[in-house]
Formats: sequence, C-alpha cells, structure tokens
Amino acid sequence: SDPPQADDRSSCPFSTDPERHPGLIFHNNKPCNAELPAELMLDAWLTPNPVWFIRHHHPVPIMDHDQYRLVVDGVGTKSVTLSLEDLKSRFLKREVVATLQCGGNRRSELDQIEKTSGIPWGFGAMSTAKWGGVYLREVLQHCAGLSHENVEAFEVKHIIFKGLDSMEASIPVQKALSPYGDVLLAYEMNGESLPKEHGAPVRIIVPGVVGVRNVKWVGKITASQEEAQGPWQRGIAYKGFSPNVKELTGIDIEKIPSMQDLPVQSAIVFPKAGSTVELDDIEVKGFAWSGGGRGIVRVDLSLDDGKTWITADLQDGKDQAYNRAWAWTFWEASVPVPDSLKGKDITILCRAVDSAYSTQPERPEPLWNLRGLNCNCWHRVSIRHQDD
Amino acid sequence: SDPPQADDRSSCPFSTDPERHPGLIFHNNKPCNAELPAELMLDAWLTPNPVWFIRHHHPVPIMDHDQYRLVVDGVGTKSVTLSLEDLKSRFLKREVVATLQCGGNRRSELDQIEKTSGIPWGFGAMSTAKWGGVYLREVLQHCAGLSHENVEAFEVKHIIFKGLDSMEASIPVQKALSPYGDVLLAYEMNGESLPKEHGAPVRIIVPGVVGVRNVKWVGKITASQEEAQGPWQRGIAYKGFSPNVKELTGIDIEKIPSMQDLPVQSAIVFPKAGSTVELDDIEVKGFAWSGGGRGIVRVDLSLDDGKTWITADLQDGKDQAYNRAWAWTFWEASVPVPDSLKGKDITILCRAVDSAYSTQPERPEPLWNLRGLNCNCWHRVSIRHQDD
Ligand SMILES: [Mo]
Ligand SMILES: [Mo]
Repeated sequence: SDPPQADDRSSCPFSTDPERHPGLIFHNNKPCNAELPAELMLDAWLTPNPVWFIRHHHPVPIMDHDQYRLVVDGVGTKSVTLSLEDLKSRFLKREVVATLQCGGNRRSELDQIEKTSGIPWGFGAMSTAKWGGVYLREVLQHCAGLSHENVEAFEVKHIIFKGLDSMEASIPVQKALSPYGDVLLAYEMNGESLPKEHGAPVRIIVPGVVGVRNVKWVGKITASQEEAQGPWQRGIAYKGFSPNVKELTGIDIEKIPSMQDLPVQSAIVFPKAGSTVELDDIEVKGFAWSGGGRGIVRVDLSLDDGKTWITADLQDGKDQAYNRAWAWTFWEASVPVPDSLKGKDITILCRAVDSAYSTQPERPEPLWNLRGLNCNCWHRVSIRHQDD
Repeated sequence: SDPPQADDRSSCPFSTDPERHPGLIFHNNKPCNAELPAELMLDAWLTPNPVWFIRHHHPVPIMDHDQYRLVVDGVGTKSVTLSLEDLKSRFLKREVVATLQCGGNRRSELDQIEKTSGIPWGFGAMSTAKWGGVYLREVLQHCAGLSHENVEAFEVKHIIFKGLDSMEASIPVQKALSPYGDVLLAYEMNGESLPKEHGAPVRIIVPGVVGVRNVKWVGKITASQEEAQGPWQRGIAYKGFSPNVKELTGIDIEKIPSMQDLPVQSAIVFPKAGSTVELDDIEVKGFAWSGGGRGIVRVDLSLDDGKTWITADLQDGKDQAYNRAWAWTFWEASVPVPDSLKGKDITILCRAVDSAYSTQPERPEPLWNLRGLNCNCWHRVSIRHQDD
C-alpha cells in the first residue's frame, strides 16, 4: 500500500485527542498546550472543566476504564495492583480543592527581556477544581504497606508516578505521606468523572506543587530511594537557574533541585491590558495563590510603581485552612485615579503576600532564567484613563 | 519601713537575670534584648550558647528543676501534669538542629526609611542550635490523648504555650501534630542542659516559625479552638501591615493573621560594611535561611545592583532534608572586582532562593511596615576597594 500521507489523520498519534473548547488560547496542538483565557478566569472560583488549561507532553492515551490497572510497588512496599473499582470501593472518597499552575506560567513576560525556551504562556496556565478521589497516603500505607518505619528502614525518599503517556515524575515521600499533604489519586473533577483530557480514569493531584508532578493517566506508583528518571524530573525542564546562566556548559544539572512547591503568584485579570477605563475609581480584579499550602494574607495594588499602595479585598478562597490553602484567592479593589493621572496612560500593578510573608519580586529581570520558570514578579497592566 | 530606692537591686525584678557574654550587642537590659555580633556569627554552624541572641519580654524566671511541672490540657485532651524527669524518662529523646530568628531581625534597615516601632536589630537576632528534648506531638498524642480524631471532633485549631514569665503564644495544631513538623519540648541546647537564659528547664522549639512562638520556661500547653491571648499573638506586635498603614485607626487587627512561618532571608557577614579590601577577588561570606523548613537552593551575589550575578558555594547546612531544612546554610564566594570598580566604593549585595523558589525583595521600601517585621530585602554592604 501507499505510504501514509502527511494529512492522513489515522496515522497521526494525536488524531484521537479529545475535541477542545474553542475559547481556549492554543499555543500548540500536537501535543496540546492551551491556556485559560482571562475573560473566563474569574467567572467561577472552580474553573469549569472544558476551559481548564491543558499542558500535555504526548498524545492523550486511550484507556478502557474496565481494563485500567494501577500498580503500586517499590522499596518498602508489598506490590499491589488495583482496578478503578478497587480504588472507589476500598478507600474513603476524599475531596480537595486545589489550583494547578504550570511551572512556565507567565513565561512570555521573561521572553520580553531575553528569549527563554518553552511555551510562551500568559497568566492562564493555571486553573482550579474540586478533585474527588482517594488519599495517596491511604493507598500507600493501608494497602501497599509503606509505613513510616519502612520509609526510614529502606531510606525511601521519593514516590514516582508513571503516566500511561510515558510521563514520569516524582515527589518527596514526606509530601506523599503527610497527614496534611492531601495528595490524591483523583477520579473526579468538579463533581464529574475525570475527563480524558485531564487524566481519566485516574491522575495524581499534588496540591501546592508545580503542575508537571500532577501526573495524568497514572499507571504505576513506585516508592524509591531516587527521583524519577527523565527530562521532566532530572533534565533542565523544571530547574531554576540564576540569570547569569545563559548556556548549560559547565553547569552540573543534577545538583540543581527539581521544582516542587511553587512561590507566591498573583495577576490583574481586569481591566485588561490596553483597555480604556472611564470611571474615576477603577474596578480591579484578579487572583492570588501560593505553593506549599500557604494562604494569601494580603494583595496590594499600586498606580505609582510601588510608591504607595491600596490593599484589595480578599474574596473566594480567603478562608482556607492554615498551610492547606491549596486553591487560589480571588480579590478586587476600587482604585481611585489621582488627578495627576486623569486622562493619561496608567500602569496598575499588583503583588501578593503569602502566609510565610513571602513576597513577589518587583521586576522580571532579576528572576529571568534560561527555562523561563517561576515568573512571579509584580503583575503590571497598562491601560488608558479617559477623562470626561 | 522606707520605700525601696530606685537603685536597690533587690527590688528590681531583673536583678536575678543571668550574667551575660560581654561580646553580645545589647539593645536593652531590662528585659534583655541582645544580638549575636557579626564577628562571631560564622565561627560555628551551631552558635555557642553564651553568644546566642537573647530576646526577652520579662525578667528571667527562677525555677527549681525538681519543682518544675508542665501541665498539658485543653479541648480534646485528658489533662496531665509532667515533671522534668517524666519528660526525660517517658519519651524518646529527639534532636533537631534549628535556627531561630526574631520577627524583627534587620528592623534597623526599615528604620532608615521611616521609623518603625521595636528594637532596632541588625542581622544578628538569629542563631542556631542542636536542641535535645521530646517531640511535642508524642506528648500530645501518647500522653494527653490528643488524637487526629479528637482534633477534628473538637475543632482544635491551635496549641497554646504559656511561659512562667507570663509570655503566651500559639501555633496551628497541624504544625504541632505533623510527623514532619519536629516541634520539640527542649531541655538541652547544643549538648548542654538548657541554660536559664534560653528557657530552663523546658522550652518550646517550633522549627521554621518566628522566634516569639518558641516559648521559654513553658509551664502550660493547652489545646484550643482559639489562638493564644495577649499582645504577642493578637496585638500588633507580630502582624505584618502594608506600607500604606501609617497608623492603626480603622485597621481591624484581628483580621490580620499572626506571623508563623518566616520568609527567605540572607545576609553578607564578611566583608563588614565600611571595611577596605585590597585583593582583586573579594572573599564574601554569609548565611541564608528560610522558614517552613524550606531549604536554600541558591545564593547569588552582585556588585552592580542586580544587573549581573555570581552564584555562591553553599556549605554547612546545604544537605538538610526536604521541607525539614530548619537550620541556616552558610555560603561563600570569591567575587572578582571588575576593572571599572577597582579603587572605588563598591556595594555588594546578596539574595537567596528557597526550595519553593521564593525570593527576597529587591528593596526595603515596598516591604516597610509599621512594626518593622520581616525585613528580608537583598542585603547590601558598602566597602572600599583599595587599588595597588
Ligand atoms: Mo508545567
Ligand atoms: Mo521576636
């Protein structure tokens, strides 16, 4: 027979990917990388499943839920194999509201200083859901026999997740086993069966930790003395370099820790950059979030590059549990335009403070890094004020 | 009889305070507030007991160790009373190396912008010890019966510590009970019996959390639905305001969370500010630390206000456990003086990145706050380079 044509969809491994919401902002299609548009971001504190950001590394694997098996094994465990029905019937169902953020969110702002490598995300590589599933620690401890004693005796340091798409990533064993870590094997998303796009039938949710560790379509979980293999754990993909590193010659990549917990983040969603406002009090709205379960203590806004500040009102998300504030906090403020700025171009900026009183850096330049990761500088939006 | 004279030492409640190392930098004596001098800071990774910083709120209470009793009570517990001997004989001895930092460390830098209220600390309100004692969680769980189930059923939110000097402070119950929280009832400091000055016979060590919660001379521990009472928990003493708050009128202080975990910190200890260096490679040394158990991932130095960077070598402290890096990390770097700066005044600055990729703010101005807390901006030291 003839060789497949370039446009023969049946030969393309991405041809069976799900259909996607046209309102997403697509950076790539094969694999799919798409962000949540600003217009939809604040409509609901729990992002509707169809507009959730998508960050894939491979085609979406096709999986018959009846055939699904999860293998749990590794150092200090007795190996077990679980079906989806086993997970649902043998463990209590748990629900956790958690925001996920790609490590490269807001990378486009760093690219404006000097090109980095990676998808040029705006601030929409971030979404929130109520996840339903079972606690990973209960599966590891009560089913696979990974006790705290075994962790010490066998020097278990990491829990490795392997996806059916061949993604591999790991988290520190303390995060997996902590009674306050809330790591889930999730089979539900916002009350629905987990969508194919987001890891059906089962994915990992690691609250407070960079998106890439939240492995979708998880097929195998392994206790190990070592981190996961592969570029997303050991390579440069999720390692933060100093701004002075412009090339990798002479850099010992193994010595730089892989990203896990993320730093404090915030952004102004409204007004949009480039828009015109007419009122003398600007209604500003946005979100703030921090990794590691750190809640948002305060969000400040400034019209004069940080000389004076107005503190925003915290709204949905402000009352989360201490060090388990896994979801974003929405905020809004009414910011009076001073006479000196009426009828002029105005730059509004925001910054958040988390419960460790960690702050966002002022400018992007000192946090520029080769891979464009962890961009969390004060978020600036330039608008025009139209005087009456 | 005659009324006591002002200079009658027997009438002064501070007259029985211990003698103190003359090398400390004293800000007050009644109560004693003294910092570790820079010259001694890097001599040992574990700060010797006599030069540890001192931050008291009251006179040092006099305590007969045989008479000492610790009461543990509150919601969801069965009340117990323990002697020092009970603590030593009925629980395993645990050792934790932890750095403590006063919430006002480096306040003097904020005072230069605009006066704050509080002791004008340099960067020496910070020291490190190997603490020996028993895990608070083991006392709460195995002796006072505070199970995870009781915490949920009785809605226990805080563990309150009362000192015999009448200090009162609390921490979130999750920190107290977490198997990775490492909160201690300490009776040893660097292998010696805990000194009077630092809380003998028993004090609380809350690794990663602001100094004031590490209550000395602890007499009572109470499980509660509410935070501790008193100015150090509920008042303005340890609350971080926005820079726009210049007075407290109209501020709802109860709504602002009390400080617990601290943000990432670092300082240049050598060369000292104002010194002259002659070599063309400046030997720079200092420390870095972060709260919440976050380890130090990187320390960068700059001679050009952050335009270019040199990454320091991490030394003692660099290999602490993930999210249990309770102690500081020492670092050093050899920084070449560019031709353009030879024979000139030079400002060296440092900044650290912690394991959540949290960073230090660039300038003190945007973090100025009424109480002068959490000063962790890039640390700058001005020196003179002497050309040959
Ligand atoms: Mo990512
Ligand atoms: Mo303090």
